[in-house]
Amino acid sequence: MGKIVVVGATGTIGRAAVAALSRRHEVIEVGARRGTYQVDATDPQSVQKLFETVGKVDGVVVALGGVHFGPLDQTTHEQFMLGLRDKLMGQINLVLQGQAWMNDGGSFTLTGGITAHHPVLDGTNASTVNLALEGFVRGAAMDLRRGMRINLVSPTVLEESAEVYESYFPGFEPVSSRRVGLAYVRSVDGGDTGQVFRVGY
Amino acid sequence: MGKIVVVGATGTIGRAAVAALSRRHEVIEVGARRGTYQVDATDPQSVQKLFETVGKVDGVVVALGGVHFGPLDQTTHEQFMLGLRDKLMGQINLVLQGQAWMNDGGSFTLTGGITAHHPVLDGTNASTVNLALEGFVRGAAMDLRRGMRINLVSPTVLEESAEVYESYFPGFEPVSSRRVGLAYVRSVDGGDTGQVFRVGY
Repeated sequence: MGKIVVVGATGTIGRAAVAALSRRHEVIEVGARRGTYQVDATDPQSVQKLFETVGKVDGVVVALGGVHFGPLDQTTHEQFMLGLRDKLMGQINLVLQGQAWMNDGGSFTLTGGITAHHPVLDGTNASTVNLALEGFVRGAAMDLRRGMRINLVSPTVLEESAEVYESYFPGFEPVSSRRVGLAYVRSVDGGDTGQVFRVGY
Repeated sequence: MGKIVVVGATGTIGRAAVAALSRRHEVIEVGARRGTYQVDATDPQSVQKLFETVGKVDGVVVALGGVHFGPLDQTTHEQFMLGLRDKLMGQINLVLQGQAWMNDGGSFTLTGGITAHHPVLDGTNASTVNLALEGFVRGAAMDLRRGMRINLVSPTVLEESAEVYESYFPGFEPVSSRRVGLAYVRSVDGGDTGQVFRVGY
């Protein structure tokens, strides 16, 4: 039983994490606009305010962030930066600043995605951001202190959102939110660090 | 025999690429402050100006970019963004904008590094950026048109700079610049795309 903050709790993946973690933990749901508390994870001041509000925690789970989809030869610098600022730095900010609020032995769990390993058309930004997150987790696992751990959950398309993303992920077999939720439990309640938990691929 | 632009030509790795590629190609050396032409790769307008100056090319080789080294619990948002803006987006900008100036069948070759796969203390930013570049290459290889190719050279520490980096890479076996140069030739003159050429590890 620990105090776990889930950032991005109201999204499809976040809801799966909340449902699975709530069985054994006190879960604090944080969203961009909904949830018990709100945060703009791209803004270090907003992140600071969030941790001042929730206080010390035993776990931070992050499932947020948009990326840019579009043809590479029409992608601008600013469009590419969108995914770096949002899905990549948004999650990283919560780790950089969350360390000071994490109890000894607590865990961070970030969220990547299948495009890190299986690219899709128009998805170069997603492949970049998702593999960058794996690099961050690999590096941070060595540098975290006081027994803190960090892992990444990397799901394929979820059943709930399969229709929305069908044109980007043709023929990709969707995974249930129950299976995705399990991966967050494995990261939070297991002993792993620096690991990537692929779900459904 | 093709026209190859090497950006970052005056650095340790860039010089290795230039030396190896010059045997068979017309190499245009570009640096941040030195070289035949200068570019600030983090600035899309500066990149645009570079391509307007050099015109159509058969290959773009990029070996540039700084990253942040330091303890994770003292790393700020801005420090982390440094590596994303510089080594990551600097190289990506040259691909986003370079496509329009690339002859059919031309190649992009980017430069990553060993920390993508072997993290070092204080090196989370480097691991993130270097694995992000591998994700970019994986995604872009699927999206490039007109037979354009893209690969990444990922070297360990070079012999020439081994002393400078010794404290960050303790016990890492350095590699000769000759071997690093060969990897750029393999990317430019071979038929691969979407590949990571690890050198010395």
